[in-house]
Amino acid sequence: MSATPFRKISGGVCAPKGFLANAVSAGIKSPDVERLDLALIYSEAPCVAAGTFTTNRVKAAPVRVSQAHLRDRDVQAIIANSGNANACTGVTGIQDARKSAKTVARSLGLRQGQVAVCSTGVIGLPMPMMRIEPQFPSLVEGLDRKKGTDVAKAIMTSDTRHKEIAISMELDGHKVKIGACAKGAGMICPSMATMLCFITTDANIGRTNLDKAVHEAVEHSFNRITIDGDMSTNDSVVVLANGESGMPRIQRNSKSYRLFRESLEFIMLEMAKSLVKDGERVTKFVTVKVNGARTYNDAKKVAEAVANSALVKSSWNGNDPNWGRIIHAIGYSRAMIREELIDIHIGSKPACIGGLEAQTPMDELRKTVAKDKFTITIDLHLGDAEYEVYTSDISPEYIDFNRSEYAYWKQARKDGLTKQ
Amino acid sequence: MSATPFRKISGGVCAPKGFLANAVSAGIKSPDVERLDLALIYSEAPCVAAGTFTTNRVKAAPVRVSQAHLRDRDVQAIIANSGNANACTGVTGIQDARKSAKTVARSLGLRQGQVAVCSTGVIGLPMPMMRIEPQFPSLVEGLDRKKGTDVAKAIMTSDTRHKEIAISMELDGHKVKIGACAKGAGMICPSMATMLCFITTDANIGRTNLDKAVHEAVEHSFNRITIDGDMSTNDSVVVLANGESGMPRIQRNSKSYRLFRESLEFIMLEMAKSLVKDGERVTKFVTVKVNGARTYNDAKKVAEAVANSALVKSSWNGNDPNWGRIIHAIGYSRAMIREELIDIHIGSKPACIGGLEAQTPMDELRKTVAKDKFTITIDLHLGDAEYEVYTSDISPEYIDFNRSEYAYWKQARKDGLTKQ
Repeated sequence: MSATPFRKISGGVCAPKGFLANAVSAGIKSPDVERLDLALIYSEAPCVAAGTFTTNRVKAAPVRVSQAHLRDRDVQAIIANSGNANACTGVTGIQDARKSAKTVARSLGLRQGQVAVCSTGVIGLPMPMMRIEPQFPSLVEGLDRKKGTDVAKAIMTSDTRHKEIAISMELDGHKVKIGACAKGAGMICPSMATMLCFITTDANIGRTNLDKAVHEAVEHSFNRITIDGDMSTNDSVVVLANGESGMPRIQRNSKSYRLFRESLEFIMLEMAKSLVKDGERVTKFVTVKVNGARTYNDAKKVAEAVANSALVKSSWNGNDPNWGRIIHAIGYSRAMIREELIDIHIGSKPACIGGLEAQTPMDELRKTVAKDKFTITIDLHLGDAEYEVYTSDISPEYIDFNRSEYAYWKQARKDGLTKQ
Repeated sequence: MSATPFRKISGGVCAPKGFLANAVSAGIKSPDVERLDLALIYSEAPCVAAGTFTTNRVKAAPVRVSQAHLRDRDVQAIIANSGNANACTGVTGIQDARKSAKTVARSLGLRQGQVAVCSTGVIGLPMPMMRIEPQFPSLVEGLDRKKGTDVAKAIMTSDTRHKEIAISMELDGHKVKIGACAKGAGMICPSMATMLCFITTDANIGRTNLDKAVHEAVEHSFNRITIDGDMSTNDSVVVLANGESGMPRIQRNSKSYRLFRESLEFIMLEMAKSLVKDGERVTKFVTVKVNGARTYNDAKKVAEAVANSALVKSSWNGNDPNWGRIIHAIGYSRAMIREELIDIHIGSKPACIGGLEAQTPMDELRKTVAKDKFTITIDLHLGDAEYEVYTSDISPEYIDFNRSEYAYWKQARKDGLTKQ
């Protein structure tokens, strides 16, 4: 990947040609708080679009609406908010999401189906549309080449920092750019997280190839991160490609397709890793690498069982290189394993060889686990299949942080949106 | 069940006729700590025995040894220790477990195969046999009718209180007794927990019927509790029946079989619930009841997804009746669901009806979740299948408590048992 000939640039989602953005404070959580929470991304030129969404069977209204809108693959704008997930809000929620798309579409001269809608925040509360709708005019008016970072900030929930990236590369002799912003924190789990990721590019690519590239890249990035084993109702990755770079159309299996696909995966992986590093009250970034599994699914099961074990994650939080808890998680992963063949390395040092304690002194292993970034390598010695996930420790502060969302509900009651 | 004609009595595993017990302090964790950690249960008369063991593919040495010994179904004694799980200890671990069985068997005039071995504690450390073996003579000598409670105490690890129960009932005109003790805490998960449960009875029952009764009862008790979603390498339930009550042999599908099976399930359920209540740093006992699922497996998936969600458990810890997190866990359970049909009751009050917020005031729901015991009822309205699990909240203290087992390792190094 390091060989890939692209360089990082500034500008986020506004870095590629022809993309504008804006964000405002609509007071979605609370009217009294000045905080960017409503964002708009817009391409001046028509786009080819692709997206992937949560596999949770409880889907937020904006997810249902955006999935429908993306069917024609010509989405040209994204309206997004934080503070309210618009999930479990029934017909009203669907109507609210559609209304937002429709209003924004009209003032941009687009069809409703050309606007994707994304929300993140608390589940089960109606959207405070009385505070959101009045913002649409100024949101559209203020569209600007320089406001990519505002969008990254406006979609933050419990994120401690905004997340964006942009790269520039040569494709068929033309300068092509890809920009992205994302939000995460909490509930990060394989098969996508509570995360939103918006990606813009001025590459020239058709629907089928963009779909293929996006799905491959997501499988190797966002589907491989986990913080607490939960899975959200709102996860969305939306990619807009407007072809404004002037490059010729990317052909199937061409060199430029491979390069574009690699760059897209690089961008998504950077965003995915930054989500884990900024997970709720996370203190460590841990890569769990499984080798020698009989099948790809076995490797995946083992990696995810270890990465999701509350006991394993607690021990990491305590700088305890507890390979016993790791091997017991391997044991209940339901993957085919043979205890006496299992090797576990913590960093480069063996902790367990052939299912038994290795000779590495405990204190050396502790040094590795005490770092804020390390890799656990598990070799099952049963085949050639591999899998890798990116995860974190779990801290007492995480539980404490997630004990209550009562504040949202109190505000919703003030707004007359809930009787609860 | 309340109709079942039996009454609670004292004495634990020594309540039934012909059972003796003893426990001593062998300093397995640390030679300097006076604490019961080595226990023996013995039936003066031959027994019919049955057991169920962890489904974790990484099995502790004593589990492998006891499974083999139980094949002949005539186990007559159980040797158990806390402080060391004798798991991931390879050939040495197997040898240590066999040696314990053999030594105890010899001094009791039994075959090695008539002694079951059970261990609980830290994984990956060799057993400090140099402190255990010298204790066997006094352990056997001290066997006594009055020491049932000592066994319950000796198997405790992070349990805050010992757990035992005994009941007396009429079977075919004879007084029949069942006694039990158990240990749990932490890592409690469906398909059995880090738990040991020893059950003694003077009922007269054959191998096939005892097997059947034990497996049915375990499925409805120990397999339905979960604290942190982890699953241990050492879980064992061992049941010894010596027929000393003088009753005639229990016949298949007879009234006495049903009564015996019911009583056994009552005992196991009482023990299982007491494990959850005493889970590591647990503050609440929660029953998650799923109705209206299309299949039994769907009901089970939903109940376990909700009961194992870190976010749901955190909200319970914070007295937050967060039904949004519950429905999102239902959504990723992989069970067949229809969001718009889901009802969620917290206690007797509706929190979510048809996938939407119910009218119950938040503060009423909070009152229920603030209790130390409540039920979450989920109706999927898709069929008749039901499932119920018993679980708990997760507290910041749980994570803090599980951050390190370093003390064990330091002692093991002192003992020259590990280079780590």
